[in-house]
Amino acid sequence: MTRPAPQDVRTVACVGAGVIGGGWVAHFLARGYAVRAWDPAPDAEARLRRLVDAAWPALEQLGLAPGASPARLTVTGTLEKAVSEAQFVQESAPEKLELKRELLAKLDAATPAGIVIASSTSGYPMTDMQTEAVTPGRLIVGHPFNPPYLIPLVEVVGGERTDASAVEWASRFYELAGKSVITMEREVPGFIANRLQEALWREALHMVANGEATVREIDRSITEGPGLRWAFMGPMLTFALAGGEGGMAHMLDHFGPSLKSPWTRLEAPELDGALYDAVVAGCADASDGRTIADLVAERDQGVIDVLRATGRLPGTGAR
Amino acid sequence: MTRPAPQDVRTVACVGAGVIGGGWVAHFLARGYAVRAWDPAPDAEARLRRLVDAAWPALEQLGLAPGASPARLTVTGTLEKAVSEAQFVQESAPEKLELKRELLAKLDAATPAGIVIASSTSGYPMTDMQTEAVTPGRLIVGHPFNPPYLIPLVEVVGGERTDASAVEWASRFYELAGKSVITMEREVPGFIANRLQEALWREALHMVANGEATVREIDRSITEGPGLRWAFMGPMLTFALAGGEGGMAHMLDHFGPSLKSPWTRLEAPELDGALYDAVVAGCADASDGRTIADLVAERDQGVIDVLRATGRLPGTGAR
Repeated sequence: MTRPAPQDVRTVACVGAGVIGGGWVAHFLARGYAVRAWDPAPDAEARLRRLVDAAWPALEQLGLAPGASPARLTVTGTLEKAVSEAQFVQESAPEKLELKRELLAKLDAATPAGIVIASSTSGYPMTDMQTEAVTPGRLIVGHPFNPPYLIPLVEVVGGERTDASAVEWASRFYELAGKSVITMEREVPGFIANRLQEALWREALHMVANGEATVREIDRSITEGPGLRWAFMGPMLTFALAGGEGGMAHMLDHFGPSLKSPWTRLEAPELDGALYDAVVAGCADASDGRTIADLVAERDQGVIDVLRATGRLPGTGAR
Repeated sequence: MTRPAPQDVRTVACVGAGVIGGGWVAHFLARGYAVRAWDPAPDAEARLRRLVDAAWPALEQLGLAPGASPARLTVTGTLEKAVSEAQFVQESAPEKLELKRELLAKLDAATPAGIVIASSTSGYPMTDMQTEAVTPGRLIVGHPFNPPYLIPLVEVVGGERTDASAVEWASRFYELAGKSVITMEREVPGFIANRLQEALWREALHMVANGEATVREIDRSITEGPGLRWAFMGPMLTFALAGGEGGMAHMLDHFGPSLKSPWTRLEAPELDGALYDAVVAGCADASDGRTIADLVAERDQGVIDVLRATGRLPGTGAR
């Protein structure tokens, strides 16, 4: 068992170097790690270096860790060479279950004992992916968002055969590596954020399929509307503010009946007493003592800041 | 027929002065209009003035129109007094179809001929609301987002009995009043943005109902994840960038099969050739000549700007 303390990791392996894998490479390089990458595509190295070069100016703006450099990237000729010296492995292969199963088994065989191996899968449960591995206890999901070098969120969850210590280790490691971690206690297909954005995406596809809205209108309806709020206040607290001084309870009283309106193709859950109470209590908890007036002031300032930052206030440059 | 040119409007009536109606009042005041408001609740005036006072500092930051002042708000004792001198009427009553029908008929009877009357409804088609009005041709939907004084989007659409000229007039008026308008050609329950956010909201409620995620986790999964992008780049172009240098076509090739994964309770549409082509062509159109590399650079700068604006970069104050 050679698992280092999370703060002692110096070398990370990234297996699969497409948009997501390459984005992880850029992130780990910027945070000062040495990165060993492998991808079977013939043009993978050139594409990966282009991606890192394109991301680097943004990463400089974010602030590089001491010693961070694109020169610390090594692209290896084999999977084994990428992982043999790694203290953490991030797998970002194409989203095909069979392929993931086989690859994770290979990675498990080639990676030093105990080292945690994370999959970037957008939705497969680790339970379904770890079936072929000899030591599945160290396999976890670490699901990022595109681009992984800028979007903080990583959803961390294990499978049925994953050791709790590997989940805990990975959550701590990602935090030290500058990510914002949600550690899930149980496997849910699509995790949390992907389920939410997938619901939105499917509704958008329905609208396009039915000629109800164009791609441009769909995008504008978000960037000029709810998207401005969601950059800093999530959909639940945002909706709580639609209830005015009464907050989420009043919002549910007022808009609860609309849940049964045919406003999406997604069937709504029954808004029974238990769900009502859970949502209201959850909002109270997430408010961390802030009153509705506090939240309104915070939201208003946030929208203004975001409008200004994205060049949409009078006197700021248009994007 | 006394409909003024959109640029000649000076006095606006707001009927219903809760969270949304009050937000409209604040918006129109800040844009320099005289506002006449009416709401049947006994404490409506005090609550409305509190809302305007709370919003005013934000509106000052956004930049007030010449002559803008909270003093230009008149709260009237009757509906008739609110609308009798109005050059535009915005109705924001509770979301109950019967109530909307009756109120719009009353407003139609009390408002000078030709003046456009808009409903803030979150989802009822105007066709279903204009049934009792004597002159339904001037009734339109002007659906805002909370708070209307900060979120630019207004979705404008008429009903079957609405005159095209009223829809056109309202779109132009809202633009002059500082809103960002999507004029819809056909009625879709929930319009565009509400269908999208309602899909997300329902999925979130399912997750809470099943104990799969807490309110706090749901909100964090958006603000630390996709919400950062959606403040300035919509879900469609954002997803196009998940396809790497191949854009939306590659994204659909790669992730299309996930559409059938059980990642939400929303049933996905069939990704047939027509939908595939419509989505790819729509993204090309919405890109306005920007290459994938251009969009990636724009997205990266946008995320950094939003992170900085919301205090989440090193060296900026935490919110």
